[in-house]
Amino acid sequence: MQVTVWGENAHEKRDASVRAIYPDGMHETIAQGLRAHLPASAVVRTATLDQPSCGLDAATLASTDVLTWWGHMAHDRVDDAVVDAVCDRVYRGMGLVVLHSGHWSKVFKRLMGTSCNLRWRSAEDRETVWTVDPAHPIADGVPDGFVIERQEMYGEFFDIPRPDELVFISSFSGGEVFRSGCCFHRGHGRIFYFSPGDQEFPVYHHPVVQRVVANGVMWARRESGVRSARYELERKELGWLDAAGGRA
Amino acid sequence: MQVTVWGENAHEKRDASVRAIYPDGMHETIAQGLRAHLPASAVVRTATLDQPSCGLDAATLASTDVLTWWGHMAHDRVDDAVVDAVCDRVYRGMGLVVLHSGHWSKVFKRLMGTSCNLRWRSAEDRETVWTVDPAHPIADGVPDGFVIERQEMYGEFFDIPRPDELVFISSFSGGEVFRSGCCFHRGHGRIFYFSPGDQEFPVYHHPVVQRVVANGVMWARRESGVRSARYELERKELGWLDAAGGRA
Amino acid sequence: MQVTVWGENAHEKRDASVRAIYPDGMHETIAQGLRAHLPASAVVRTATLDQPSCGLDAATLASTDVLTWWGHMAHDRVDDAVVDAVCDRVYRGMGLVVLHSGHWSKVFKRLMGTSCNLRWRSAEDRETVWTVDPAHPIADGVPDGFVIERQEMYGEFFDIPRPDELVFISSFSGGEVFRSGCCFHRGHGRIFYFSPGDQEFPVYHHPVVQRVVANGVMWARRESGVRSARYELERKELGWLDAAGGRA
Amino acid sequence: MQVTVWGENAHEKRDASVRAIYPDGMHETIAQGLRAHLPASAVVRTATLDQPSCGLDAATLASTDVLTWWGHMAHDRVDDAVVDAVCDRVYRGMGLVVLHSGHWSKVFKRLMGTSCNLRWRSAEDRETVWTVDPAHPIADGVPDGFVIERQEMYGEFFDIPRPDELVFISSFSGGEVFRSGCCFHRGHGRIFYFSPGDQEFPVYHHPVVQRVVANGVMWARRESGVRSARYELERKELGWLDAAGGRA
Repeated sequence: MQVTVWGENAHEKRDASVRAIYPDGMHETIAQGLRAHLPASAVVRTATLDQPSCGLDAATLASTDVLTWWGHMAHDRVDDAVVDAVCDRVYRGMGLVVLHSGHWSKVFKRLMGTSCNLRWRSAEDRETVWTVDPAHPIADGVPDGFVIERQEMYGEFFDIPRPDELVFISSFSGGEVFRSGCCFHRGHGRIFYFSPGDQEFPVYHHPVVQRVVANGVMWARRESGVRSARYELERKELGWLDAAGGRA
Repeated sequence: MQVTVWGENAHEKRDASVRAIYPDGMHETIAQGLRAHLPASAVVRTATLDQPSCGLDAATLASTDVLTWWGHMAHDRVDDAVVDAVCDRVYRGMGLVVLHSGHWSKVFKRLMGTSCNLRWRSAEDRETVWTVDPAHPIADGVPDGFVIERQEMYGEFFDIPRPDELVFISSFSGGEVFRSGCCFHRGHGRIFYFSPGDQEFPVYHHPVVQRVVANGVMWARRESGVRSARYELERKELGWLDAAGGRA
Repeated sequence: MQVTVWGENAHEKRDASVRAIYPDGMHETIAQGLRAHLPASAVVRTATLDQPSCGLDAATLASTDVLTWWGHMAHDRVDDAVVDAVCDRVYRGMGLVVLHSGHWSKVFKRLMGTSCNLRWRSAEDRETVWTVDPAHPIADGVPDGFVIERQEMYGEFFDIPRPDELVFISSFSGGEVFRSGCCFHRGHGRIFYFSPGDQEFPVYHHPVVQRVVANGVMWARRESGVRSARYELERKELGWLDAAGGRA
Repeated sequence: MQVTVWGENAHEKRDASVRAIYPDGMHETIAQGLRAHLPASAVVRTATLDQPSCGLDAATLASTDVLTWWGHMAHDRVDDAVVDAVCDRVYRGMGLVVLHSGHWSKVFKRLMGTSCNLRWRSAEDRETVWTVDPAHPIADGVPDGFVIERQEMYGEFFDIPRPDELVFISSFSGGEVFRSGCCFHRGHGRIFYFSPGDQEFPVYHHPVVQRVVANGVMWARRESGVRSARYELERKELGWLDAAGGRA
């Protein structure tokens, strides 16, 4: 399994407060969490917006089984061609794990078909994350509830399609709630959105958060790999399935 | 539309604290809320556990389009024959609105197929109810969020099947969350579970709560009425649909 | 309730075979079916691609509670500005009923976030439509199964997000199946996709099809109307809900 | 992973036609299919109704990670205590794969909360199975569509709760359709229902059917194992989560 951790890497350059928490960049902390929690056979690498092709050239994408995405202040600097390529690969079976402010990325908004708007506050809220689907693979080994002491508030209404699977719900100091762990299927690909994680708080150092992100990567990965071709509109004459030996 | 508001009417007899809030019984307050919010053509009556046949004799059930259910301390005093009859009518299309501690009623547990267990605390928590599916009919005219100042806490994990439609999520003073407005389809019937509402707090006097319960009744009611027969296992020979003129 | 039936009206101009079935245009037959099945208070009008603003100028959209959409050969002639306006109004609560080849319209694909590809064959298949959610409002009064004698085949895989509610599944002479009646929620709007209906076959004259489309319109319409504003990203300080009197 | 393949083993004793197809019993063929398709580390054993405790004594259940269930003519001979024990273990995380006529087993009906009725015909229909959720783990490596030449017809309406995940839909010679691959979550357990498989036809010898059943077993198995205790109703005082170190 090849995992690519994509990071915007912009706050880290601009804001000393962020560098203090994530001295090697948020992407590096996320990658280290994955390396600690995924099976040894998983290869985890990073890619950032400031690299050529926004870090996601054809060869990188073509060798990625699961992509994680963190972006915030520079969503609009991601080339539309890269967005096209990422969505195309999701449709063919690449797993996608979208983190926190990635809810407003071009990639996520296109895959959802909605505004992905929400209510928010950056004021040191306390977030409590609750498992509402303990039978879900992403909840495996995760406590029924766990606390993140300081976090940005993300509150409902979160303008997404109804999640195919709702795994976590969070509450915040102000009484707000948020569907914080949501699964979607698009084409042949699986998408997990997980909202905890802000540049101003050390959320990606939290061991349970690391476990959830790793579970999300494991869940999003297809055993049979990514398809070489996208699924297209196809004309099929009567009897085509028989002609194919009873298997489409 | 005939609506039957079923109440256990047991706390009201035993506990002065409950009588102080609901002098005519909780069922009567719930019924008055419905009369205030439903179209004038709706007929709302009440039925209680202390009546013959637990208040739900064959004639009453047979003329009920939507049944609301509140019970708590006397779930086990509901006859199994009544449970059978209620479930049978739900399967044939009667709407069912289950309120608060009705989550542990025999009827609800049988329809869910799970334990319906949860975490709870009766300690004057503040509950904030959030709409997470504003396009849902039950959310029509309901604020994005609203506060119930004093309430019993119901917290996850709530051991129900994944709701077919999740309309509301609540948070509590202690940071707990709860899927407080959930829709289910069983057979030809629609079921709405709404958790706010405890005997020790004046929740059913809250105008938004009344609106939600009325919306739930409207949503649960089938335009085409309740079927006379239950859907059975049926053997169907080749060509049966043609023999029936192309309509099953 | 104001219903606008949008039709591409292109096959009708080009193909005598289509004019023979739909002499006043497909949109007019669809509109007549709605007039026959909706309550008398519903106002049903038509709009076509060949009109100014593709038939959907600001005033028309602003007065539309539910829009039905049939298009096929001219999807790319719908202006992107019109697509933006239609999606914006769906997000604010307008109902949308997408018919047959409308699955490939710009509007539907954007709202779904997927390719909406499928398998197809235009060869006089027989389609049998089955109700798999008889408790759903759109199934009200619809037979358990019904036959459309001649139809274009639409077969799986249909590349849409998992429907929020799956009401109908169809089979075809060649053994293919299709999720033919699917509901989605996007923002404050409800969307119903119904696949029966091709320009070469008299599907919209079928009384059960007319009933389903009318049920879809009724279901998609919000009692409380369309919001004046779209839901936006909002910063909310601690205590905002209290400051608003406990209602958001 | 310990898999227990439960078989009723009654048709095999009574009907020569069934013995001709399944000389060692249907359970043995199902088990062999699993041994061929599961990882080598999986241990697959069988259990039958004619054994003590219906084949499912406490020790057997306690060591079962995933249970597969095939029954038909003797559903009522399964002791209620065994049904209780199986459901209890599902709630605690055991995977359950219910096959074909197991839809009418006591276990499945209790877990669903519905009648599980359907339409049927035993007349050598041809069944075509279609994948409608290619991103689902159970569809991994399964063709888009595949044919089972001779099968019993199972047709809608199938009176189950809306599946949490719908993976396969089948059509039959008579034009009927059926939701043939359905996933449910109950408590901490995952349930997969797969309808192909009848005692009079060699369905469990079909390699794709074997692959699907094996995928179902893999999907239903929890990495973290089955919980020792069932989830119970719990009173939780304010501050309980903090007292527990921020993890429930």
